[in-house]
Amino acid sequence: MKYIITIGREYGSGGRFIGKLVAEKLGIPFYDNELITEACKDSGLSPAILETFDEKTDGFFSAAGMYSYDMSLSQKVFLAQFEAIKKIASLGSAVIVGRCADYVLKDEPNLCSIFICAPMDQKIERAVEHYGLKKEKAENAIIKKDKKRKGYYNFYTDKDWGKASNYDMCINSKLGVDNCVNLIVQYVKERFGNE
Amino acid sequence: MKYIITIGREYGSGGRFIGKLVAEKLGIPFYDNELITEACKDSGLSPAILETFDEKTDGFFSAAGMYSYDMSLSQKVFLAQFEAIKKIASLGSAVIVGRCADYVLKDEPNLCSIFICAPMDQKIERAVEHYGLKKEKAENAIIKKDKKRKGYYNFYTDKDWGKASNYDMCINSKLGVDNCVNLIVQYVKERFGNE
Repeated sequence: MKYIITIGREYGSGGRFIGKLVAEKLGIPFYDNELITEACKDSGLSPAILETFDEKTDGFFSAAGMYSYDMSLSQKVFLAQFEAIKKIASLGSAVIVGRCADYVLKDEPNLCSIFICAPMDQKIERAVEHYGLKKEKAENAIIKKDKKRKGYYNFYTDKDWGKASNYDMCINSKLGVDNCVNLIVQYVKERFGNE
Repeated sequence: MKYIITIGREYGSGGRFIGKLVAEKLGIPFYDNELITEACKDSGLSPAILETFDEKTDGFFSAAGMYSYDMSLSQKVFLAQFEAIKKIASLGSAVIVGRCADYVLKDEPNLCSIFICAPMDQKIERAVEHYGLKKEKAENAIIKKDKKRKGYYNFYTDKDWGKASNYDMCINSKLGVDNCVNLIVQYVKERFGNE
């Protein structure tokens, strides 16, 4: 049977990596920003623009939206991603990370929307190790990144990023990456049985 | 090994019932408001007062707190419950529902803090069936109840009720009560192994 797992995640929580491992364990495709950008190639937007405006709103969006029929670039990127995510979901089961995929696919019957968070000390550790952030600047950078993610999500959806009731399951990755993967696979089993 | 499972929950989400079944499945004691009230009997507060001020703040608390050394009744009830929850946790593994138990026990090494939410239509159904609410008034009553729970929790703790990052795991009970129970038991296994 077909099902879609979307992963929202705090920066440095390991959510993307957990999603990748879940996809491997379930034997279904995995889509993160690179692969969604790839799927946007029909939109006519250049890879540079897709990357620059990925999960970003531009500050003067609402003013531009009110006084002009022309869409801002960030809106165009959002819509290109929106179409790409719809197309990805139409192809079969998949794990999709970020980009409001849970909102885009909210009418998908077998949607499992997951959110991954983590304690700040573990997010700092991961950001230093994997994203090359300087330790003393990491906490501020993480707070800023998550503020942007929340802003982007809340702007384009009618929901509240990181609020438990928006999702089917939320896990704090202090449990350990492999244990989180097992738990998500278990969630899929509980929800859909062994169909 | 000893561990404590706390259950925060939206009104009508089935969280209390899920907690009861988890306790049965794991063979550990279960504490809800009745049993916490029972555990408060050493506090000197009457059962009527404990019940009236259970999970409630009184409106003029902060003013009273600023101008008087005397505690308000709701503060006294909170402190009595605080002590009772500490005592319960000292006795061994347990499942404890509500009363900011996750905050009271935040320094407990093997704390599993769980939050249960549910879609509004399912909360209405449950509230009508189990709590005798009238169908046409149920939604407003549920919103009001949860506003009070959030207010109580946010007032007494430094955290935000229902925000994923406050908890170890959050589950939307649209998954089904038994499936939620299985998933929480699985969480405990993933976290502590088969010790």
